[in-house]
Amino acid sequence: MRALELSYPWGTSNLRISDHPDPKPGMGQVTVRMRAVSLNFRDTIITAKGGYAKGNESSPPVVPFSDGCGVVEAVGEGVTRVAPGDRVSTLFFPNWVSGPPAPEKAAGALGSPGAPGAGRDLALFPESAGCRVPDYLSDEEVSTLPCAALTAWRAMFVDARLEPGDTVVLQGTGGVSIFGLQFAHAAGYRTIVTSSSNEKLERARALGATHLVNYRSEPNWHRPVREATGGRGADFIMEVGGAGTLIESLKSVRMGGHIAVIGVLTDANAPPATLSPSVMIGTSARVQGVSVGSREMFEAMCRAMTLHQIRPVVDRTMPWTEAPRAIEEMAGGSHFGKIVLTF
Amino acid sequence: MRALELSYPWGTSNLRISDHPDPKPGMGQVTVRMRAVSLNFRDTIITAKGGYAKGNESSPPVVPFSDGCGVVEAVGEGVTRVAPGDRVSTLFFPNWVSGPPAPEKAAGALGSPGAPGAGRDLALFPESAGCRVPDYLSDEEVSTLPCAALTAWRAMFVDARLEPGDTVVLQGTGGVSIFGLQFAHAAGYRTIVTSSSNEKLERARALGATHLVNYRSEPNWHRPVREATGGRGADFIMEVGGAGTLIESLKSVRMGGHIAVIGVLTDANAPPATLSPSVMIGTSARVQGVSVGSREMFEAMCRAMTLHQIRPVVDRTMPWTEAPRAIEEMAGGSHFGKIVLTF
Amino acid sequence: MRALELSYPWGTSNLRISDHPDPKPGMGQVTVRMRAVSLNFRDTIITAKGGYAKGNESSPPVVPFSDGCGVVEAVGEGVTRVAPGDRVSTLFFPNWVSGPPAPEKAAGALGSPGAPGAGRDLALFPESAGCRVPDYLSDEEVSTLPCAALTAWRAMFVDARLEPGDTVVLQGTGGVSIFGLQFAHAAGYRTIVTSSSNEKLERARALGATHLVNYRSEPNWHRPVREATGGRGADFIMEVGGAGTLIESLKSVRMGGHIAVIGVLTDANAPPATLSPSVMIGTSARVQGVSVGSREMFEAMCRAMTLHQIRPVVDRTMPWTEAPRAIEEMAGGSHFGKIVLTF
Amino acid sequence: MRALELSYPWGTSNLRISDHPDPKPGMGQVTVRMRAVSLNFRDTIITAKGGYAKGNESSPPVVPFSDGCGVVEAVGEGVTRVAPGDRVSTLFFPNWVSGPPAPEKAAGALGSPGAPGAGRDLALFPESAGCRVPDYLSDEEVSTLPCAALTAWRAMFVDARLEPGDTVVLQGTGGVSIFGLQFAHAAGYRTIVTSSSNEKLERARALGATHLVNYRSEPNWHRPVREATGGRGADFIMEVGGAGTLIESLKSVRMGGHIAVIGVLTDANAPPATLSPSVMIGTSARVQGVSVGSREMFEAMCRAMTLHQIRPVVDRTMPWTEAPRAIEEMAGGSHFGKIVLTF
Repeated sequence: MRALELSYPWGTSNLRISDHPDPKPGMGQVTVRMRAVSLNFRDTIITAKGGYAKGNESSPPVVPFSDGCGVVEAVGEGVTRVAPGDRVSTLFFPNWVSGPPAPEKAAGALGSPGAPGAGRDLALFPESAGCRVPDYLSDEEVSTLPCAALTAWRAMFVDARLEPGDTVVLQGTGGVSIFGLQFAHAAGYRTIVTSSSNEKLERARALGATHLVNYRSEPNWHRPVREATGGRGADFIMEVGGAGTLIESLKSVRMGGHIAVIGVLTDANAPPATLSPSVMIGTSARVQGVSVGSREMFEAMCRAMTLHQIRPVVDRTMPWTEAPRAIEEMAGGSHFGKIVLTF
Repeated sequence: MRALELSYPWGTSNLRISDHPDPKPGMGQVTVRMRAVSLNFRDTIITAKGGYAKGNESSPPVVPFSDGCGVVEAVGEGVTRVAPGDRVSTLFFPNWVSGPPAPEKAAGALGSPGAPGAGRDLALFPESAGCRVPDYLSDEEVSTLPCAALTAWRAMFVDARLEPGDTVVLQGTGGVSIFGLQFAHAAGYRTIVTSSSNEKLERARALGATHLVNYRSEPNWHRPVREATGGRGADFIMEVGGAGTLIESLKSVRMGGHIAVIGVLTDANAPPATLSPSVMIGTSARVQGVSVGSREMFEAMCRAMTLHQIRPVVDRTMPWTEAPRAIEEMAGGSHFGKIVLTF
Repeated sequence: MRALELSYPWGTSNLRISDHPDPKPGMGQVTVRMRAVSLNFRDTIITAKGGYAKGNESSPPVVPFSDGCGVVEAVGEGVTRVAPGDRVSTLFFPNWVSGPPAPEKAAGALGSPGAPGAGRDLALFPESAGCRVPDYLSDEEVSTLPCAALTAWRAMFVDARLEPGDTVVLQGTGGVSIFGLQFAHAAGYRTIVTSSSNEKLERARALGATHLVNYRSEPNWHRPVREATGGRGADFIMEVGGAGTLIESLKSVRMGGHIAVIGVLTDANAPPATLSPSVMIGTSARVQGVSVGSREMFEAMCRAMTLHQIRPVVDRTMPWTEAPRAIEEMAGGSHFGKIVLTF
Repeated sequence: MRALELSYPWGTSNLRISDHPDPKPGMGQVTVRMRAVSLNFRDTIITAKGGYAKGNESSPPVVPFSDGCGVVEAVGEGVTRVAPGDRVSTLFFPNWVSGPPAPEKAAGALGSPGAPGAGRDLALFPESAGCRVPDYLSDEEVSTLPCAALTAWRAMFVDARLEPGDTVVLQGTGGVSIFGLQFAHAAGYRTIVTSSSNEKLERARALGATHLVNYRSEPNWHRPVREATGGRGADFIMEVGGAGTLIESLKSVRMGGHIAVIGVLTDANAPPATLSPSVMIGTSARVQGVSVGSREMFEAMCRAMTLHQIRPVVDRTMPWTEAPRAIEEMAGGSHFGKIVLTF
C-alpha cells in the first residue's frame, strides 16, 4: 500500500507518498480500500506545523486527512459493525460514539500525530473509525461528511435548539457553511449567507439561501441581518472566521441567541477574538465552541441527508497524488464547498 | 416623599435627596413604603455615568437602585397581584414575567434613566415591579434578591443544566458569587470559591464551600480547579471578573462545560476580554451572557430559599441618606455579600 | 351586535343568535369586528354539555368558539399591542403569554363558560386575547390558527425535540393532524399519515406526507411505521384518538420517543386509555399531554408559516348563522382540515 | 466456581447452585470474584417466569441477578478500563455507555436469559459490564447500585429537569424510592414519601423526607401532596406501583410536571394502568418510562454519592446460598431499601 506522509520540516514540500507492506487487520481492526478523501482547513494547519500545537519537530511522520470514503477489504477478530464489501465513511473521532464530548472521546482524531488518517490507498483503522453510508451518495460526496458536515449538523441540531422559521447566518462558503446552509434549508430555517463574492452568493441562493450579504460592500453585515429579521436578530450564527467576525456576530444575534464557534479558519496561533462581556450580558448571547461530533450524530445526519437527498457540494476533484497542491488551494480559500482527492 | 436623585455632572457628589409630593397610584400602579434597598456594582456605573452608555449629559435626574423591599401602601385600579399591607420585593425587569429574555422584557429596568428605582421612601411602581416575598426573611435580606440573587439563580438553574456532584466555581465574594455559593450548596454541587483574601475564603467555607483558592497566591487558579475535579475541570463557572479572568475560566472548565458571564465588575468601557476560538473549540465550552431573570424565576428562587431557609449575606447596613458613601464602598470592593441601605 | 349563545338544555338546538347593544372597550379591552371563526372538536363537547365537566345545568349562556379572525374596531385605555384597523387572530389562552403552562395561564380559555368566545359579530375581548397576523393569509385561514395549529406547533417544536430526518406519525386528517403534517414537512421530518380513507390519504400526500397508512386495511399500523423507519420506530406521534389508538402508538414509537396526547377526539367522559407500565418502561417512551400554547409560541408559529407560506387547509366554509349545522358536521368527522364560519 | 442457576419449571425451588470449571477471560473479558449481590423486584419476575415474556419453557438455565460487587481477578486481551485487584460494580446494561437509550444498548441486560448475571462466585463478564466504584462504600452497599440507584438517578436528573425547592413524591420505601429520596435530598428538593407503614415513614424522615403520607389512612394521597405544595402539585413523581397508583399520581402532579414510570412492582402480565387522555391534556403532564441507565450516568451518580457520602440503605443481608429465600422475601415486600446476598 501507499501512504501520504508528512515529515519535518513541516510543509507541503515534505508531504510525500511512501510504500509500505499491505496491512492485515488485527483484533477489532479493519482495512479499507480508500476511494476518496476530502480536505478541511485543519489539514492546512497540520501540514504547516505537524500538528495543532507548536513544537512538533521530533514527531514521527503524520498520515494526513480525517475524511475519507472507502470499501472494507478485510476485518479482524471481533469486528461486528462492518463486513468486507461495505462502503464506509471514516469518523473524525473514532472514540466518540454517543453522548456529550469528553477528553477520552476526543482522543485519537484521525489524520493527526499518532492517529494515521485517510491519506492511504489501503488504510488500517480501528473498527470504530468507520461507518456505513447511504447508497445515493457518490464516493467523493461521502468523503466530505466526517468533519465539515458533522460539525455543521452538531452545531445546529445538537448544541442549539431552533424552530422552523428561525434565522441562521452562515459565514462564507467553505465546507461547514455550505453544509450548514443545506441542513438549515432542509430544517425550514431562514438562511442568510455572507461572502465577499457575488458569484458565490448566487450559488448559495441556488442551494436555498433566503438572504445574501456581500460583506465586502457591507462590512457592517449585522445591519442586513437585523433588517432581514425585522430588527430581532439572528437566532443562530455559524461563526467560522474567528477574530475578525465575532464582533459582527454579537451585533447580529438576537437576545438569547446562539453563536457556534467552529473557527475553521482559525489557527491556534492566530490573534484571539475580543469578546466584550458587557455586550454578551446585554444580549444574553450564548457562544459555544464546536468540534465535530459523535457516531450517533453522524447516523442521524445520514438519515436526514437521505430523506432530503442532500448532495454535498464538491468544488473540485484531483488525484490523491496531488495532495500538496490541493492543500495549497485549500489555504487559498477560493473554493465553494469541498475539495476532494480521489484514489 | 423623598427621593434620591442623581443629576449631571454624574458622580456621588450629585446624588442628593429631593422632596416631592406623595404619589397616588394610577391604573395598574402601586405605591410602596420602602424599608431597605441593596446595592449592585451596576449602581456604581450608573452613578458615575448617568447610565450604561456614554453621553447622558442631558438626561433628567435618575432615581437609583433596582433592588428594594417595602410594604404596599396603596394600589390603583386593576391591580390584582398585591394588596395594601403586602411586603414586596422589587423586580429588576418589571416587564419580564416568564420565558426567555427578549428586548421588550428587558426594557424599563428599575433604577436606570427613565425607570425610577427603589431609592425613594414612598415609591410609585407599576404593579409588575413588585412580588410578594417569604416571611422568614428580614427586610434587609429581601432587598438583596432582585438583581444579585436572581442572576445567580438563572445562571445556574435556567441557563445551565447541572447534576448533584457537579463542580461549580464562584469567583470572588461579591453578591452574585455568594448567592451562587449558597444556591450551589443547596443543590448538592461541589463548590470552589476564589478570593484574594484568606479571611473571606474562611467565611465562604462556613457557607458550604468545599474548596478554597486564594488567587493571589495561586494566579493560575485553573490548577487547583483541575486538581479538585480529578483533572476533569469545572462543570460551571460564574464568571464575574470579565477581561482578566476569562482566560483562566476557559482553562478551568471541563469539556462541554458552561461559563456564565455575569460581569458584575465590568464596565461597558472596560477593555474587552480576549477569547481564543481555538481554545473554545478544543473544549466545546459554552460561554453564556446573563442578565438577571424573570418573575417566574424569582418565584422559583423564593421557593428554594424558603425550603432551605437560605439567608442572604448582608455585609453592612447604613441609612439610605448615606447612599453616596455606600456607593463608594461598593466600588471599593471590600465587601463580602451585600451592602444594604435602610429607610 | 349579535352573538351566538348556547343555553341549557345544552345542544345545537339551543345555540341561537341574540341581539345586544354594541360593546365599548374599557381599560385594557378591545372590540373586534369578527370576520371568520373556525371549529374545533372541543366546540362539539361544549355545545353538548355546556362545558368540559358535568353538571353545568345552571350556567349562564356560553358564547362559543375559541378561534377567530377579525379587525380591531376600537381600543380602550392602556391598550398598546393593537390599534384600530389591525387584523388579529384570537388567542385560545389570553393569559398565557410566555413560558411553560400554569393554572393561571390556562384560566379564561375563550369560548367556554365565563369567557365569551369568538362567535359574535362585534366581540369585546381583553387586549391579551388578540394577536396581529401575517398578511398573506385570508381571514378564513387566520381563523384556523388559535387552537389546532398552535397545538400541533407546541407538541412538535416546544415539548418534543426532533431533528430533520426524524419520523413523525400524524393520526387522521383533522385540524391538528393536518397542521402537524404541514409543520413537520416544513421542518424536514419524515411524515406518516394514517386515515381510514384512501382519498384523504392522497390529499395528505399532496401536502407532503412521505408515507400513507390506511388503518382500516392495516389496523396494526405500527407495522408499516416500523417498516418505514427501518425497524426503529417513530420519533414522534401526534396521538389524537385517545383510548383506541394509544396501544398502537406505544408499539410504533422508537425507544425514547415522544407521544403527544392531544386527544381532540376525546371527551372527558370517554373511557380512559389503558397504559401498560411495562411497555412504557421497555421503550422509555414519553407520553406528554398538550393543550394549545402561549402567545410567544403563536408568534413563532406565524414566523414559520410566513417563511414557508403555509396555507391552512379549510375544508368547508359556511355562514356563521349556520353554526349549529357546522357543529354537527364537525362531530360527524368527514372533514379534512378545518371547518370555518364567515361573518 | 459455583453459580446459581434457575431452570424450568421456573420458581425458587429450581434455583440451585451448580459447580463449573473456573472461567478464563478471553479477549475483552474479565473475571470477577463476587462479594455481594443485591436483589430487585425484577429478579422475582424472572425467577417466576424464566424471563420477562411468557413462554420460556425451553430456555436454558438463567444465572440471575443484575447487581453485584466484586474484585477483578483476571483480565483478557485488550481490556483497558479495569485491572486485577480493582473493585467493581456490575452495570445493568453493559452495552449502554452513553447517550439516550436504544435497542442495541438495552440488549444483554445482566441476569436475564442469554446474559449470565452476578449470581456466581467467580463471574466471567465482558469488560463493559464492570465499573470501578468509590472507596467509601462497603461491598454490600456497592451491590445495590446498578439497577435501583441508577434508575432513580436517571429518572430524576436525566429525564426530568428540576430545580432546588421543587417537590418530589416517592412512592413506598423499596430500593428505587429510597435512593430517590436520598438523591432528591442531596439535590435540594422537597420530598414527600408515601407508605402504608408509619414506622417506615419515620425511617424515611431520618433520611431527609420533608413530608410523610400514610396512604392507608389517606388513600387520596394527592390531597396531602397538593397541600404540601400550596395547591401547586408535585413537580416530579416516582411512579413505582403501576396500575393502582397512576391515577393518584396524575391528580398529584403540577401542570407540566413529570411522572417517571419505573414500575418496579409491575409484572408484564399485570393489568394495565388506565390513563385518561383528558386528564393528561388538562395538566400537560409528562409520563416517562424509565429503565436503568448508562455507564456515564452511573459515573455521574458515583460522583454525587461520593460528594454527599450517601450510604445505600441495606435492609438485610444473607448468604448467597440462600438466594431462594431472599427472592421470596423480596416478593413479600416488607423491606425498606435493599436486600443483599454476600459471598
